Amino acid sequence: MHDPLAHDADALLAELFPICRSITGDGVRESLAILQKHIPLSVREIASGTRAFDWTIPDEWNIRDAWVKGPDGKKIIDFKKSNLHVVGYSMPIRKKMPLADLQKHLNSLPDQPDIIPYKTSYYRPNWGFCIREQERRKLRDGTYEVRIDSSLKKGALSWGELLIPGESKEEVLISSYICHPSMANDSISGVVLATLLAKSLRVCKEKLRYSYRFLFVPETIGAVAWLSKNRAAAKRIRHGLVATCVGDSGAFTYKRSRRGDAPVDKAAQKAIEDSGKPYSIVDFFPWGSDERQYCSPGFDLAIGSLMRSMYGTFPAYHTSGDDLRLVKGRFIAETLKLYHDVLDIIEHDRIYSSCNPHCEPQLGKRGLYGAGSPDNPEALMKERALLWVAAYADGMHSLLDIATRARFPFRIIREAAASLEKHKLIIST
Amino acid sequence: MHDPLAHDADALLAELFPICRSITGDGVRESLAILQKHIPLSVREIASGTRAFDWTIPDEWNIRDAWVKGPDGKKIIDFKKSNLHVVGYSMPIRKKMPLADLQKHLNSLPDQPDIIPYKTSYYRPNWGFCIREQERRKLRDGTYEVRIDSSLKKGALSWGELLIPGESKEEVLISSYICHPSMANDSISGVVLATLLAKSLRVCKEKLRYSYRFLFVPETIGAVAWLSKNRAAAKRIRHGLVATCVGDSGAFTYKRSRRGDAPVDKAAQKAIEDSGKPYSIVDFFPWGSDERQYCSPGFDLAIGSLMRSMYGTFPAYHTSGDDLRLVKGRFIAETLKLYHDVLDIIEHDRIYSSCNPHCEPQLGKRGLYGAGSPDNPEALMKERALLWVAAYADGMHSLLDIATRARFPFRIIREAAASLEKHKLIIST
Amino acid sequence: MHDPLAHDADALLAELFPICRSITGDGVRESLAILQKHIPLSVREIASGTRAFDWTIPDEWNIRDAWVKGPDGKKIIDFKKSNLHVVGYSMPIRKKMPLADLQKHLNSLPDQPDIIPYKTSYYRPNWGFCIREQERRKLRDGTYEVRIDSSLKKGALSWGELLIPGESKEEVLISSYICHPSMANDSISGVVLATLLAKSLRVCKEKLRYSYRFLFVPETIGAVAWLSKNRAAAKRIRHGLVATCVGDSGAFTYKRSRRGDAPVDKAAQKAIEDSGKPYSIVDFFPWGSDERQYCSPGFDLAIGSLMRSMYGTFPAYHTSGDDLRLVKGRFIAETLKLYHDVLDIIEHDRIYSSCNPHCEPQLGKRGLYGAGSPDNPEALMKERALLWVAAYADGMHSLLDIATRARFPFRIIREAAASLEKHKLIIST
Repeated sequence: MHDPLAHDADALLAELFPICRSITGDGVRESLAILQKHIPLSVREIASGTRAFDWTIPDEWNIRDAWVKGPDGKKIIDFKKSNLHVVGYSMPIRKKMPLADLQKHLNSLPDQPDIIPYKTSYYRPNWGFCIREQERRKLRDGTYEVRIDSSLKKGALSWGELLIPGESKEEVLISSYICHPSMANDSISGVVLATLLAKSLRVCKEKLRYSYRFLFVPETIGAVAWLSKNRAAAKRIRHGLVATCVGDSGAFTYKRSRRGDAPVDKAAQKAIEDSGKPYSIVDFFPWGSDERQYCSPGFDLAIGSLMRSMYGTFPAYHTSGDDLRLVKGRFIAETLKLYHDVLDIIEHDRIYSSCNPHCEPQLGKRGLYGAGSPDNPEALMKERALLWVAAYADGMHSLLDIATRARFPFRIIREAAASLEKHKLIIST
Repeated sequence: MHDPLAHDADALLAELFPICRSITGDGVRESLAILQKHIPLSVREIASGTRAFDWTIPDEWNIRDAWVKGPDGKKIIDFKKSNLHVVGYSMPIRKKMPLADLQKHLNSLPDQPDIIPYKTSYYRPNWGFCIREQERRKLRDGTYEVRIDSSLKKGALSWGELLIPGESKEEVLISSYICHPSMANDSISGVVLATLLAKSLRVCKEKLRYSYRFLFVPETIGAVAWLSKNRAAAKRIRHGLVATCVGDSGAFTYKRSRRGDAPVDKAAQKAIEDSGKPYSIVDFFPWGSDERQYCSPGFDLAIGSLMRSMYGTFPAYHTSGDDLRLVKGRFIAETLKLYHDVLDIIEHDRIYSSCNPHCEPQLGKRGLYGAGSPDNPEALMKERALLWVAAYADGMHSLLDIATRARFPFRIIREAAASLEKHKLIIST
Repeated sequence: MHDPLAHDADALLAELFPICRSITGDGVRESLAILQKHIPLSVREIASGTRAFDWTIPDEWNIRDAWVKGPDGKKIIDFKKSNLHVVGYSMPIRKKMPLADLQKHLNSLPDQPDIIPYKTSYYRPNWGFCIREQERRKLRDGTYEVRIDSSLKKGALSWGELLIPGESKEEVLISSYICHPSMANDSISGVVLATLLAKSLRVCKEKLRYSYRFLFVPETIGAVAWLSKNRAAAKRIRHGLVATCVGDSGAFTYKRSRRGDAPVDKAAQKAIEDSGKPYSIVDFFPWGSDERQYCSPGFDLAIGSLMRSMYGTFPAYHTSGDDLRLVKGRFIAETLKLYHDVLDIIEHDRIYSSCNPHCEPQLGKRGLYGAGSPDNPEALMKERALLWVAAYADGMHSLLDIATRARFPFRIIREAAASLEKHKLIIST
């Protein structure tokens, strides 16, 4: 079975994965340029030192090379082999030092000795290396030479942005983050999914009800920066999802918005339930990804996060183990289908009123009734969906409410509503 | 043990069961005439062709005889043996045809080969027979002669109606349907229960708080017709139950009104719980019986359905298996007791205010306290019921609320309230 | 391990236990005098015959001696051996009678033959003795001499009261009852806990937010009397607990206020959950102790009851088995700690608003972030507590709401709020 979406996802993953990104710098720009080959992304920049609410845009960080040479002059750590080897935002350094001093700048995982951890020090000037515990154990006393060829100076923070206009100026926000170096599920999987989702919405045959805004921002500081520069646009956001950790084989996880019962929360729950696949739903908690910013009390946007294995819960999280053996295009394609299902609910959920509220409409005389029977369960469900919509088209229950109450797939209820509307039995309020 | 109610129910079941009823015609009239021997039912008619909301009263159908003769001239299907053999509302026909043509007009149940299914075609002109699968399998090629001596022409739809006036013009509706041919649990059991209930309310010694309206209508179209002709009366309905499937040995089932938390829903739940018998409670769904019409959004009446084995859930449903071996007077009598218990709650639920709201009343000085002990649990429960009512007689909690909170039988709480009221410790608000 | 609080509790238990108390009389006065050695209790009296809502203060009862002599002239029941031997409020009597007459005035427990039951007859003039079933079985026919040297005449009902003023005139009520003779868990354990709690609040270094009122009243009639004389003070009570049955080794039990969702109900539940110990929570029911009066509809105060094994649920309840082998100072000390935890929540629960509601505050630049990691779970919880408070400081969620939602100990959330307030990131509303 060849799935072109899975293939596209795999290709984009492979292209983005090796780049050394951080919250600023050329890695971000290079990544956004790759995305621009697929969608007409606007790239925006905001200068170092600019205030954004309680935060300040940091200096821009770029890195060319980094290594540690052992007492015998051989490279024992080499940035060229894995960009995780260098602590993000490490200051430039070239120095010889005894092992004891070097140890203070090394990070490793005693419990997972064969993988490299991911560390950053964005706002505290520092330098450091991350290595496999099994390599660290081999280090012997002696003089080591350390070299980080990085620069940390005035520059800018970059992000990518795309608005796909719909009938309404009210917006749906899909936000992903583009600041992690070579990690696949955390960060890049969400970027790939958002790109493919934007690509498909741009060519969608049906007219979109909402306008769709896609953000590819450095996590935290990028979302803070965008919100500080776009307070009017933020007010137009009605629904949204943070896309991250969408590419492994784990069960779906939906993290609710801070509101907890926003339409996107109900739509995501219904779409996941309708999928028939295993899932878990967790209430909002104030750490994780950029929902922290979107849901902060001053904004309190209706933004949840639809994932597979959630950050912090899979062993490879924030390590070199989060690679392209864990994340596959076919899993992203499967999650992308679920995103479409959530958006389908958001696009089509409406409240109807019956034009014939006294007693049932006589469906039979309109050819809408009679095929259903225990032997034809699909026709039976369709007829019953018509009855559900007719019975609850009272100006108070939305189609999503009805589908949830009936425990019917949203799609079946939506089609029933379309049929009743065509027969002028219900009218959208 | 001789239970006169069970005996009466059995007798009425036996009298009603054999009649061939449909949604119109002489079978309905004959059945209503039998009920009139027990209660002073008004019989009303509405002419074919009359509009009723989205529906039109159909032509009247009557049938005298029907049969199919095999190639050897012997009757292989005979309406006289079971009125289920003919599809309801079959057009008149007299014709010879090969087996292949006849087959298109035969209905049987491959999974239940020894019973006859029940089929109708009210609004689509057609004709057909229903037979046992085991008989159908014996049919051999040849010429068959088909005869249905029915008429389908302008006439009327009939229903029975009885109003038992109470102190208030506000009404409780008990609705049953009288359109099914020889089936016992579905349709007739509810008719028998409603008749016996009406009979006992008419001779009730206590003054009724509500007026009680009993309807015996053809299902769906009869309820639609009644509602279309009685919109003012419908507005006076405060509570109601659709009586059907009340006569088999199954556990009680209560189907909630569309509102879900109407007083009748709470009263039915409490009465069933107090009965100590097994039960299930299901939320409203928009198919089933005439609650579909009463609960349609334009009416949204507080009408549930109190049953035993619900339609569609027992194997004999809509077949010749739904007969007097399945349905017994003693089961109807037991369900009738539960109907009385529900109505007892509806009649007696009230909100009281304490005349002595500060601290407990001193029950002892009124002789109301002191007999209760672990050795006398009944007296203990009665004393505690007094405390419950005194503690919650705050103008906000009804007796049903209190009984539900206390998990005490409603009767005990009601008696406690009567006692406190007699001692002028509480007053009805 | 020496726990001075447990030691103090044991000493006070031993001093109070032997006294013969009832709802009036010198036993109550003697007990209050003992408490006055620990806290500056005001002792109040109200005269016999005074009306208190629906009640009347009864005559005062005192007893000096009581016994029953057998046919051989030997004392077979002796008040001096256990003050439970006499039914409380027994009228004076000196009389000879046959065994059959005496039996009508004897109480024993057939199921627990080796313990003496506790009985009273406050409002119905009577006399009686309580004995072990095993002794009763030995009684042989013959003439018995009965002597109760009691007095029942105009006098007063006494109670103890202490107000510890706080910043606000709004009050927290701690109520215990002092009317039971030698029983340890029921009545006295609560008196001891309340005394030690009052003692510690008086020397509390931190300024109290609420004023604290401690009541030591005869159960029921004492609470009724206090409420009738203190209607203005009752209106100032915002939270409260009835202290009883706090001294055995059983799991904690919290009985909710009649309101069910009052702040004290939420605070007690959180404090018990935070304790990590086994517990049960029960809804209000209108028997038990003085919460019956405080929660009566005319007052409806937010008063629950925090216990260990609840009255009526442990076998020794209302018998001589409720003694100092069942109740220990160390259990009272443990329950006292829980009372402090509940009051800590009530004292410190507040609603905050963020001064920085748009996006997260940058905790790192204030030195509040960075120490937390899976290897340092305590620091991680503290950082996350800061995020919880910042995210929900929206003028709508109290610290208790936040702690409950986060499932974090209240203390951690409170400390996080203090830290954010110090950094001017949140402000109390």
